[in-house]
Amino acid sequence: MDEDLRKLAAQLPDGAVLTDPDLVEGYRRDWAKDPDAGRPLAVVRASCTADVQAVLRWASARRVPVVPRGAGSGLSGGATAVDGGLVLTTERMRRIDVDPVTRTAVVQPGLLNAEVKKAVGEHGLWYPPDPSSFEICSIGGNAATNAGGLCCVKYGVTTDYVLGLEVVLADGTAVRLGGPRLKDSAGLSLTKLFVGSEGTLGIITEVIVRLLPAQPPASTVVASFATVEDATAAILSVTRAMRPAMLEFMDRASIGAVEDALKMGLDRSAHAMLIAQSDSPGADRARETEFIAEAFARHHAPEVFATDDQEEGEAFTAARRFAIPAVERLGTLLLEDVGVPVPSLPDLILGIEEIARRREVLVAVIAHAGDGNTHPLIVHDPLDAAETARANAAFGEIMDLAISLGGTITGEHGVGRLKKAWLPDQVGPDVMELTRRIKTALDPDHLLNPGAVL
Amino acid sequence: MDEDLRKLAAQLPDGAVLTDPDLVEGYRRDWAKDPDAGRPLAVVRASCTADVQAVLRWASARRVPVVPRGAGSGLSGGATAVDGGLVLTTERMRRIDVDPVTRTAVVQPGLLNAEVKKAVGEHGLWYPPDPSSFEICSIGGNAATNAGGLCCVKYGVTTDYVLGLEVVLADGTAVRLGGPRLKDSAGLSLTKLFVGSEGTLGIITEVIVRLLPAQPPASTVVASFATVEDATAAILSVTRAMRPAMLEFMDRASIGAVEDALKMGLDRSAHAMLIAQSDSPGADRARETEFIAEAFARHHAPEVFATDDQEEGEAFTAARRFAIPAVERLGTLLLEDVGVPVPSLPDLILGIEEIARRREVLVAVIAHAGDGNTHPLIVHDPLDAAETARANAAFGEIMDLAISLGGTITGEHGVGRLKKAWLPDQVGPDVMELTRRIKTALDPDHLLNPGAVL
Ligand SMILES: Cc1cc2nc3c(=O)[nH]c(=O)nc-3n(C[C@H](O)[C@H](O)[C@H](O)COP(=O)(O)OP(=O)(O)OC[C@H]3O[C@@H](n4cnc5c(N)ncnc54)[C@H](O)[C@@H]3O)c2cc1C
Ligand SMILES: Cc1cc2nc3c(=O)[nH]c(=O)nc-3n(C[C@H](O)[C@H](O)[C@H](O)COP(=O)(O)OP(=O)(O)OC[C@H]3O[C@@H](n4cnc5c(N)ncnc54)[C@H](O)[C@@H]3O)c2cc1C
Repeated sequence: MDEDLRKLAAQLPDGAVLTDPDLVEGYRRDWAKDPDAGRPLAVVRASCTADVQAVLRWASARRVPVVPRGAGSGLSGGATAVDGGLVLTTERMRRIDVDPVTRTAVVQPGLLNAEVKKAVGEHGLWYPPDPSSFEICSIGGNAATNAGGLCCVKYGVTTDYVLGLEVVLADGTAVRLGGPRLKDSAGLSLTKLFVGSEGTLGIITEVIVRLLPAQPPASTVVASFATVEDATAAILSVTRAMRPAMLEFMDRASIGAVEDALKMGLDRSAHAMLIAQSDSPGADRARETEFIAEAFARHHAPEVFATDDQEEGEAFTAARRFAIPAVERLGTLLLEDVGVPVPSLPDLILGIEEIARRREVLVAVIAHAGDGNTHPLIVHDPLDAAETARANAAFGEIMDLAISLGGTITGEHGVGRLKKAWLPDQVGPDVMELTRRIKTALDPDHLLNPGAVL
Repeated sequence: MDEDLRKLAAQLPDGAVLTDPDLVEGYRRDWAKDPDAGRPLAVVRASCTADVQAVLRWASARRVPVVPRGAGSGLSGGATAVDGGLVLTTERMRRIDVDPVTRTAVVQPGLLNAEVKKAVGEHGLWYPPDPSSFEICSIGGNAATNAGGLCCVKYGVTTDYVLGLEVVLADGTAVRLGGPRLKDSAGLSLTKLFVGSEGTLGIITEVIVRLLPAQPPASTVVASFATVEDATAAILSVTRAMRPAMLEFMDRASIGAVEDALKMGLDRSAHAMLIAQSDSPGADRARETEFIAEAFARHHAPEVFATDDQEEGEAFTAARRFAIPAVERLGTLLLEDVGVPVPSLPDLILGIEEIARRREVLVAVIAHAGDGNTHPLIVHDPLDAAETARANAAFGEIMDLAISLGGTITGEHGVGRLKKAWLPDQVGPDVMELTRRIKTALDPDHLLNPGAVL
């Protein structure tokens, strides 16, 4: 450890600063596994807001870049380390205070989403946002990426549950934004600006979340389809008429990969599978479940399975959540997150099939279909240069397709480093300029997560 | 009209630029009726985004300040004219396109909230945010102030329904932010930053809103209480256990004022009245209504009235909505909008009573009680200098009280010009500095709504 780093370490608890290359290695990449990840000076494990302030004061005095890191489950390279920078991880910041009377919780950023759900569940409360990665992602990472998930088709995304934040700015100043109040119009909506800012504007050191009463029991409807067209038509029939609590899609390749891994008897011959839930109270649940089942049958699902049993339903949800790790067993993935207005979903999914065919790469598609957000998973062998080039070409073409359909290059994972080349195509030069102006106003030396988003 | 203004008028449709003092007079103040409102150069009625761009290019070339104006129902002086500036009104921008398939609508800013509700209602859809002023406020003004209302205790505020915006920046650049997609993590959350920015960062020229299926029918529970303490205890019993679709409070003075105006048989002897609704589907509605009625009775409401009849329920809601105009008949109002975490509501309301007593002014209190947001209405005679001074003192003390209870100086009306002196006390110098940095990055010459918020 050099002298300068020692000065930082002296301000922090013992063991907060890691420089051992073996230990540092584990913090160089997120789930996007960027092969070009940089070699950081050190990893710093902050225990509290004051630690984060000390790190940023140290870093800004020396113009050392800082990459914030939650649990490293990000899929867009947002937490990829940069050469000569610090990786600042929140993994030790794990306190939570639940207030059942106001139905809010004050959470430190390092607590995992699943742990937040569990802690509030003990008070009969529910924190809805449920990324498939909920057992391995942090609430700070969720706020930084404005994470989505399965239930957000009905319950909204992370920003809808964030009432307040504590944020440490580039120069080490800690600010409190919003608070445990359901309504607050005092000043600019700074809380919401920091949600989804992917570590480029400040480090989130505390999140105040809004909670709901425990989720009512859900019924699950599952069906396979012989064609993708039938499945997407069924999706539109459902979303046009009602708001399911979940509506997920898996294509043939992902069904096969999940079945290989879990052996739960999924129909490998099907070209698409849909998993839907209703959690409406009272008789509405039965009515909605029946409506969904009928819509699936009407669009030629040979068999429709419906259950009120929570565990049976959870088995199918778990299968869907396992799709990314399952497909990953087939090769290295380039992970997309493109979204379109729901009526364009058929065009998007069929267009992706066409790109895969033309580029001769396997693209497995899973989707939070109810809100038009798809995850095409491009499988390739990084040792095969030609295939990798084709995969990269497909990666760009899929984003171009989404943009041409009035969609977004990222529905929930964020831009990170992997998708930033396409951001200007989606939002245009004026919005990029606006973004740069805000970035520069808040972080003039561009020390916070440089290379991400912008 | 001077030569310079003529140059502007030449770029706009006939009749867009008003300079006739009688006509201009009608645009100098919002509902806060600031006696010190400035004398603008002109009022400009834009018809489209290009008009707004032309106005801002003209204004920024000449450093002429621009005050954006929707329908002028604002309660915090956000649309008060400034000397030598322009008032830019959106009243002619009234197009709406509803897309029932994606359940979204693209709305120009000048359309009134009630007109948006009606247009989407024709497609069996619902735009929830419902400020009491819904018949006289514009959707652009709602987005600019992040308006709340009665149903937001369950359904959230304006920002929760805004998926995208078109905004014209100070230099005349028009940008599109977000879009009709339920999920979008591409770049910073700029859409949400502009919601609630009170015209200080840009002019909203289009709002893309998310819609819900038509609201299910609601049951209404109404009760009077002999003491404010009983009523606030009843509120806490309800919010602790469930999420009502509405939970409104009126104190003795506002009950009396509404009864004077509407003669509907309200109990003038009561010290508080609560109006609650449940709109949960199926049997849940009856269960919730009963729960609320029992909570009211348990806290000594001598009589609890419950009805499933929509019209009867609407009569009580309309009475509550009429409270501000009704109290206004008693004198000139200083309008507060303070909010606290719900458990502190009793302390806030009793503290306000104490301030009114000490300052010897009438303060009528109405509240969106379910989310802790109150509107103390300070009645005074502006010709009575001593009373006006006492009213002004009470105005500040009520905000100080809210801040000391961990609350906000404005839950939904915005800071505008009337509350800006208290904003630093609530958010602190670092957040003020952050706010100034963003303001300056986007509007370097501070031409947009100068004097509001900052
Ligand atoms: C199998 C699998 C399934 C997934 N499914 C979903 C899904 O359904 N929905 C979804 O939205 N995502 C999903 N993800 C992606 C990922 O889990 C989310 O993006 C998650 O929010 C990242 O959280 P994290 O704690 O792992 O953050 P990290 O990966 O550590 O960081 C993510 C980004 O946030 C920044 N960041 C992290 N913490 C902070 C902080 N405290 N302050 C400021 N910036 C910070 C980082 O710099 C980085 O830019 C999935 C990932 C996997 C591996
Ligand atoms: C009787 C009564 C009851 C009310 N009840 C409620 C309530 O329950 N909840 C609530 O939230 N409010 C309430 N209000 C306040 C008011 O109606 C809201 O603040 C409303 O959102 C203002 O809309 P407007 O179109 O009248 O805006 P205006 O008063 O014209 O302007 C409000 C602010 O927004 C800015 N602005 C307006 N349009 C634009 C635009 N297109 N682009 C950028 N900036 C713009 C203005 O500069 C100003 O700062 C009430 C008002 C009255 C008179």
